[in-house]
This record gives sequence, structure tokens and C-alpha cells, in this order.
Amino acid sequence: MATQGQVITCKAAVAWEPNKPLVIEDVQVAPPQAGEVRVKILYTALCHTDAYTWSGKDPEGLFPCILGHEAAGIVESVGEGVTEVKPGDHVIPCYQAECRECKFCKSGKTNLCGKVRAATGVGVMMNDRKSRFSINGKPIYHFMGTSTFSQYTVVHDVSVAKIDPNAPLEKVCLLGCGVPTGLGAVWNTAKVEPGSTVAIFGLGTVGLAVAEGAKAAGASRIIGLDIDSTKFDRAKNFGVTEFINPKDHEKPIQQVIVDVTDGGVDYSFECIGNVSVMRAALECCHKGWGTSVIVGVAASGQEISTRPFQLVTGRVWKGTAFGGFKSRSQVPWLVDKYMKKEIKVDEYITHNLTLEEINKAFDLMHDGGCLRVVLSVFE
Amino acid sequence: MATQGQVITCKAAVAWEPNKPLVIEDVQVAPPQAGEVRVKILYTALCHTDAYTWSGKDPEGLFPCILGHEAAGIVESVGEGVTEVKPGDHVIPCYQAECRECKFCKSGKTNLCGKVRAATGVGVMMNDRKSRFSINGKPIYHFMGTSTFSQYTVVHDVSVAKIDPNAPLEKVCLLGCGVPTGLGAVWNTAKVEPGSTVAIFGLGTVGLAVAEGAKAAGASRIIGLDIDSTKFDRAKNFGVTEFINPKDHEKPIQQVIVDVTDGGVDYSFECIGNVSVMRAALECCHKGWGTSVIVGVAASGQEISTRPFQLVTGRVWKGTAFGGFKSRSQVPWLVDKYMKKEIKVDEYITHNLTLEEINKAFDLMHDGGCLRVVLSVFE
Repeated sequence: MATQGQVITCKAAVAWEPNKPLVIEDVQVAPPQAGEVRVKILYTALCHTDAYTWSGKDPEGLFPCILGHEAAGIVESVGEGVTEVKPGDHVIPCYQAECRECKFCKSGKTNLCGKVRAATGVGVMMNDRKSRFSINGKPIYHFMGTSTFSQYTVVHDVSVAKIDPNAPLEKVCLLGCGVPTGLGAVWNTAKVEPGSTVAIFGLGTVGLAVAEGAKAAGASRIIGLDIDSTKFDRAKNFGVTEFINPKDHEKPIQQVIVDVTDGGVDYSFECIGNVSVMRAALECCHKGWGTSVIVGVAASGQEISTRPFQLVTGRVWKGTAFGGFKSRSQVPWLVDKYMKKEIKVDEYITHNLTLEEINKAFDLMHDGGCLRVVLSVFE
Repeated sequence: MATQGQVITCKAAVAWEPNKPLVIEDVQVAPPQAGEVRVKILYTALCHTDAYTWSGKDPEGLFPCILGHEAAGIVESVGEGVTEVKPGDHVIPCYQAECRECKFCKSGKTNLCGKVRAATGVGVMMNDRKSRFSINGKPIYHFMGTSTFSQYTVVHDVSVAKIDPNAPLEKVCLLGCGVPTGLGAVWNTAKVEPGSTVAIFGLGTVGLAVAEGAKAAGASRIIGLDIDSTKFDRAKNFGVTEFINPKDHEKPIQQVIVDVTDGGVDYSFECIGNVSVMRAALECCHKGWGTSVIVGVAASGQEISTRPFQLVTGRVWKGTAFGGFKSRSQVPWLVDKYMKKEIKVDEYITHNLTLEEINKAFDLMHDGGCLRVVLSVFE
């Protein structure tokens, strides 16, 4: 490769400060160091976590930075000691690492990985605690260990999943975050059984992926809740069997659900990030066994609460990150499932734009009709 | 039986009003109706739930009533249709019923039972929605479907466990509540595995039973926490391997535990009923998999809270009632385990008094040296 070992100057959308439009800049991307992989990003989608950090509400957000964490690309070059991917491999960057060596990875109980978090949490690479991005010498922070709003990015080797080279990158980029989060919340975290009743709060991409996962798991009733009734028709295609708009009811929504399900649902999923809804999601679960999974990410500092009696009488409160999927091991499996038409991906893509149009893409995310916007990074 | 079908007049400790000393009265106990069992109570212990309702802080507490729910006795007579026990059977009344027919019992997912709750929750029997206790015609409410502070009580047939007649009733009465609650929280609710680290908040009877259960499950570290360090020596005998007095630390206690366990415990148990401690118990759990079980009963209206991030990063919040044991099926099994010396019971009994001394017994419960007071009901 002509670029191998060289600094690459390419286009990236830089968030210079919170809540100000991103700016397409010429960014210098340093070569990968030991244990690092430089990836040419071909397609990236936007996710609400990008918007949250961009808004400035995330106290851990660092600026200037390059956001983005749901993408797909091709390995450009690899640093010393990298053995599991090579230039030319098709990959999905994974904000949730998988080192297979740490206490977490070896526990068999979680998909979280502790290896690079101390670095990715503060916007740098582990090797030298520095960024690989700069503009005229000024460092630009990484984000979530992925920074996919750039034509080239550098990620840790434990944060990149090698996938089937036949998979269309403009589609499977979605398997970097939202769709696996929803599917995995059902399959890995809740472990929904056939015949279960399920309530889903929030019918965005993650909520619809929960519906899809619940349908695949054989749930008999999948109740979708959203304050925007226009989302209901689309949700049917993802498996939702009945709809409730909380705005149509005066009673607390948990009571509405308990009433229509003869005591509550077996499983509920909060896919919004609203702590009041998280409470409702727990309390709409059936006494004795109902399990509620928090999937949405709440704003910093906010707290969930309930009466402990809710738990003492058998409800279980859980959460999930990346749906409990082990990223390097299971993202390729999800890609394969997509290739075999066992899971949807295309159906979540409502808009296709270019990296240049990224600010328009952020605007689109507030539109109820929008699920995922995929940006073509090199157009 | 000479008394069968007759009203029995006997001694009972009546709670006439909240927070006033109980009064030993001559109480009329009506014969059991269909599906009911009249039990001669020989021994009863006191539990904090009795004290809580007696205090008047329980908004569902009804007065006058006969408290008590941890006891053992002998069936005096049975009502129509009762087939699983007969006069002379040794039994433990169970505040947690098991009908084997309701949605809950048939679910295979919980020990809760829905059959008689609507009646026991309001201090009456299901058959005619009336009490079997009266004094000169004035009804006295039942409590928790058991009311064991009486020489005779009437319970639903689904609320009585037939046990080995060779078991000493003055000991196994403890298997009606506290000891199974602690053991079951570990075995049924948390499902602690060998090698686990465990934190127990509160080293009363239930906390010590958790320790015993954790030791039996093969836990490698059992950390006992209590603000009364005099409880520590005794706790060693129940399996606690190390002790922390939160008063000895300035840091939040969850942080102290995270520090000494390299990231947190695998399982924690709140055995106090304090919502702040419940939060600490959750937050001292290891990221990725730590599970916290609420065992203590909080005062009415109080709420638990935490940041949802605690759950999203893999902690699980649960609760338990009667340790998840199915009462009629498993209390006899626990009695058998005691008879085979596989579980402790005698060691929890620190005081023996008579029913007449019940007010003294309530006073003793505030003493750190006291675990269980067993009252001889007929002395």
C-alpha cells in the first residue's frame, strides 16, 4: 500500500465544540502503532449517542473530536503485532472491544471488555495515550474508540471485527451499534422465550430491532409504545403486534399495560433513554418474573427509581450494552445472518447522504420518519 | 378431637392498636371452613415484619390483629375438602401460600402464589371474607395469613406445610420465615456459584442465613457488613470470612467494597430494609455481571434509586420473597435438611421465652445480641 506507514490526509467531520455544526476538515491521520489498525471508512451511520455527545450534555465528551461509531470499511494498514486482520479485510469498527484476555472477556458472563477502555474513554489510543488525528499539528480526540465520521480512522485491534467481504458495507455498517443492541437485548440479556409477552418503549431503530428479535424468539405479543403514532405502521413490519400511545391514556402507562396483559408483560425494553420511562418499563412487568431491560442511554446524572417492593415481588431490572454481543466474535456472525436474510438491515435505512451532508443527517434524526441515515464517506 | 367443629377459646397476644404493648387475651377461634386448617401453635418466633406492622408504619396494617408468622404446630382440625393435612400432622404455617393451581404456581418461575392473597392481604379468610378470630363477638384481624401469636390459629390449606413429625417444633419454627429467606436468596434467587465473592449487608438472622447459604454454595469470600461490630464474631460461625463496618470508613461503602474486591463482588444481599443500603449493595457489585438481591423489607413509600448506567454496564437488580422457596413443597425439604444437620437452625435461637412474655421479646429484638426469640405458646 502506498499509504502504509504514512500520515494520511483525508476528509473528516470535526466537532470543534458542543452543539455547533460539524465542519468537514482536512485531517491528518497518523499510521497505526502497535496493536492498532487504520481503517478506510466507506459508510457510516449516525446514532443518538453521537448526537448526545455532540450536544454537550455528555460530561465525558471531549472536544474537538471526530464522532461516529456505526460504520464499515476496509483495513488500510495495521500496526506491529496485529495478526487478526490485514490490509484489504472488510471490517466493522466496534466501540465495544473484545480482547479475549481480560477478566471481563474471560468471565463468560459479559461482553464488556476492560482492555482499552481507559484510553478510549478519554479520546486517545492506548499505546502512547495520544490521538492519531490532528489538524496542522493540533490533536483531535477520538470518540468511543471508533471515530467513524472520517475517511480514515485508527482503532485498536481488539475493536475491529473482520466480516464477510461479500457483505454490502453500505448496509452492514448498521451492525456496528443499533441493530445488534436491540436484537441482543432480547436474545442475550433478556433471553425471551417462545410465547412471551413483550413491551417495547420507543420505536426507533433499537426498539424495532428489539421487536425483530422478540419475533424471532417466538414472542406471542409484542406491544410497541411510542408517543408518535405515525411510527406504528412501520413497526408492524418489524414484528410489533399491538400499539399503545401513552398520550392516549390518562392512567400511568405501566397500569395500562398491566391491565391489557392480565398482570403485566414477561419482558420489557426501554429504548429511549428516559428515566421515567425506565421506571414504567419495570413496573409494567409481571409480578413474580417480569424482567425489564434498560437499552436506552439516559442523560448524565439522571437516576432511575422505584419501590423495592417491585423487585422483592419478583421483577428483575437489567441493562444491556451492545446487546450483550461479543463484538469481534459475534458481529461477523450477525453479518452472516444478514447475508442469509435471517435478520433485517436494509429496512432500518431511511436516508442515504454523504459525509459532506452530515449536519443535515443530524437534523433528520429528530424526524419521526427517520431511522438510520447512512453516509457515503467518499462521495 | 373434642374440639373439632367447636369454637376454641385460647390465649393469644392481641395488637389492639399500633405501637401499644400486645395484650394476652382470651380469644375465640372459629372452626376451619372449607379449605381451611386450624393449627395448635406450639412455638412461634418473632420477625421484624411483625415489629414493622406492630409499629404502625405499615399502611396496610390492620388493627386489632394477631401478629406472628414464623411458627410450628400441630393440626387440630381441618375444614371441608382439605386433603393434604389431617389432625395430628406437624406443620409450619406459611405466609407465602402455594396452591399449585394459579398462574404463579404453574409458571415455574416464581414461588409467589396468587390464590389467597386478596384475603390474607386484608386480614380475613378467603371463604367468607371474615376473620376466624374474635373476642366476645368483636372480630380480630388475621395477619399474613398465619397469626401465630395465638395458641390456635386458622390458615388456608394452601398455607400450611406438613413436616417430619420427629422434627423439634421449638427449633424448626424458624423455617417459617427468616432462615429460608436468607438461604433461598442465595440458592434460588441469586444462584451463587462456587468461587463467588459475596457481600452481605446486615448480619441479623436473614443476613447470617445468607452467609450460611453462600458458604454452602462454595463462595470463596463472604464479606459481612454491619454497623455493629459486636456481630462479627458470631457471623464467622455462619460463614462470613471478612468484616467491614461502614462506620469505620469515610468513603461510600460501595467504593470500599469495590476497592477490596478488585472491582466489586459477584453477588450482594441487602438484609436490612434500608433503601440507601440497597443502592450501596447494587453499586458494590462487579461491572459486567454483579447481581444484587434485595432481601430486606423497606418501609412503605420509600424508593430505591441508582444511575441506569449501573445496570447498562451489566449489574442486575433483583429481590426475593421467602427466598424463592415454594412453601408447601420446600419447607418440608428444609426441615429434612435440618434433621440431617445440613443447615443450621438452633444457632439462630438466642432467647426462649413464653407467649406471655411477648412484649419483652419485642424489646429484645432491638438488641444486637438477639437473633431469634422463640416463644413457647402453651407455657
